[in-house]
Amino acid sequence: PSSVAPALVTTRSTYFGLRALNTQSQTARETPIQDTAEGSAETPYQPVKDAPPKSDPNYPWKWNSFLPEHTYKPNLNVNLKRHVQPTGLSDRFAYYTVKFLRFFADSFFRKRYGHRAVVLETVAAVPGMVGGMMLHLQCLRRFQQSGGWIRVLLEEAENERMHLMVYMSIAQPTWLERALVITAQAGFFSFYTLLYTISPKTAHRMVGYLEEEAIVSYTEYLKEIDEGRTPNIPAPPLAIDYWQLGPDAHLREVVLATRADEAHHRDVNHLRANLIKARRGDPAPYAALKHGDVDPHKFGA
Amino acid sequence: PSSVAPALVTTRSTYFGLRALNTQSQTARETPIQDTAEGSAETPYQPVKDAPPKSDPNYPWKWNSFLPEHTYKPNLNVNLKRHVQPTGLSDRFAYYTVKFLRFFADSFFRKRYGHRAVVLETVAAVPGMVGGMMLHLQCLRRFQQSGGWIRVLLEEAENERMHLMVYMSIAQPTWLERALVITAQAGFFSFYTLLYTISPKTAHRMVGYLEEEAIVSYTEYLKEIDEGRTPNIPAPPLAIDYWQLGPDAHLREVVLATRADEAHHRDVNHLRANLIKARRGDPAPYAALKHGDVDPHKFGA
Ligand SMILES: [Fe+2]
Ligand SMILES: [Fe+2]
Ligand SMILES: [Fe+2]
Ligand SMILES: [Fe+2]
Repeated sequence: PSSVAPALVTTRSTYFGLRALNTQSQTARETPIQDTAEGSAETPYQPVKDAPPKSDPNYPWKWNSFLPEHTYKPNLNVNLKRHVQPTGLSDRFAYYTVKFLRFFADSFFRKRYGHRAVVLETVAAVPGMVGGMMLHLQCLRRFQQSGGWIRVLLEEAENERMHLMVYMSIAQPTWLERALVITAQAGFFSFYTLLYTISPKTAHRMVGYLEEEAIVSYTEYLKEIDEGRTPNIPAPPLAIDYWQLGPDAHLREVVLATRADEAHHRDVNHLRANLIKARRGDPAPYAALKHGDVDPHKFGA
Repeated sequence: PSSVAPALVTTRSTYFGLRALNTQSQTARETPIQDTAEGSAETPYQPVKDAPPKSDPNYPWKWNSFLPEHTYKPNLNVNLKRHVQPTGLSDRFAYYTVKFLRFFADSFFRKRYGHRAVVLETVAAVPGMVGGMMLHLQCLRRFQQSGGWIRVLLEEAENERMHLMVYMSIAQPTWLERALVITAQAGFFSFYTLLYTISPKTAHRMVGYLEEEAIVSYTEYLKEIDEGRTPNIPAPPLAIDYWQLGPDAHLREVVLATRADEAHHRDVNHLRANLIKARRGDPAPYAALKHGDVDPHKFGA
């Protein structure tokens, strides 16, 4: 509500805690947008091929974090059982660190899988960004090619952040959890950056093992849903659009998609650790960028 | 050359200083790829709509850092004269810091614009990555939406790195310049990270002014080419594919495209500084992601 000329529809949305006035010319749009904030409960997934270009004022796309070209169908056939047997000091350090962290997460969250997701995804989104940045800086100062790996790692971070966005609609973090998230970010960011500087191989191996644990957690979450202990609520519109789910998707489909993403990250990080171990500089496989199947033991794919 | 079965064609390429053996099945490819390293002097730009999908073994795409969907035609009609008049302490700090740095760059590089590009692009690729990462971390711990800004900033960093890749074919850095790059990265990364923590507004304003200087430098480069003091060599294949230039493009077209990118970054960063100054949290305009025109003074675009 404002004293602006009637031709303008004013909406409010909040980013970074700052108020924004998004004014849209009403004459240019058929349907006034009531709420452009992500998570608005309006139209779910618009099939990419049917939607007009986003510059079209009638475009129904509601999201700013991602555009239709960033949506995809998760690879639900991914092998959930892949595991890399720890061999050598680096692998063992990575493996036992993850098991140690798991113990604390299990004690704190127990069966509260929604809250577990909304807290741990904030941590999961850190390694891809740190790794991507460090590779970016290395490629710059060494005048080297990236082989596509920078993009792969940054997209992993973005994907984990989208996981967070999805689970935020499902579980609101408590004040204690918010404080925990801030502390965990400071701690894990420092730790992972240091680890990546000392041994990128160990860092990627650790992320691979973290993702293996994430797959276990999301499988347990699925069990809670299937056995009726957690309500199978309708999927958030963000999830429906991001993963190209059907309009009547529910939490179950969301957890399946999330788990498929975690398996993908597991394979990509294990592959990178294996490549570094084998002293190879292969480029990132095409499947790594396209949510396809990545075999961590297959070089030159 | 190796003792592998004749059905496999083995090529070597180097990423991160590690040797890679990329084996391609010869029966699956019509044309054996002799050299998959970026910068190979083979077929230039394959129009995106005509090329088969990259998973097709006959795909002619040679690059790993970017795929056809990441190529674009630069907006050569962008307004090169846009300037933000410094108002207030933050703007003045940004402006005079840039002028100070310019003095040193001018003294060191003088008319060697190819070398200037290949050194300064390593510095230019830092702010987008730092800003993107800090926003990413902030969004995670505050459970906030990004409005698309993380992607915009990370793509700016990627674009500057592509500039580096392009100019590497044109000017090989001297050993002194390589040492300078490493020192400059350590210094600028620390400085910019600190600045971003204290005042993101000043940081973005500074990048806006740096880009204004970059536009001046590339305009001077163009003058050297047009007045015959620098040879107008054929454009590197990487540049032709990345900017969708014609197959007989030359250095002139490359510099024009680079300059258009710098103008785009200028506008995006000045816009972001203006938004922060106005205490607004508008999402990133669609044009920011699509190399379209961005007016730094127009909010809610
Ligand atoms: Fe995740
Ligand atoms: Fe994950
Ligand atoms: Fe640049
Ligand atoms: Fe630039």
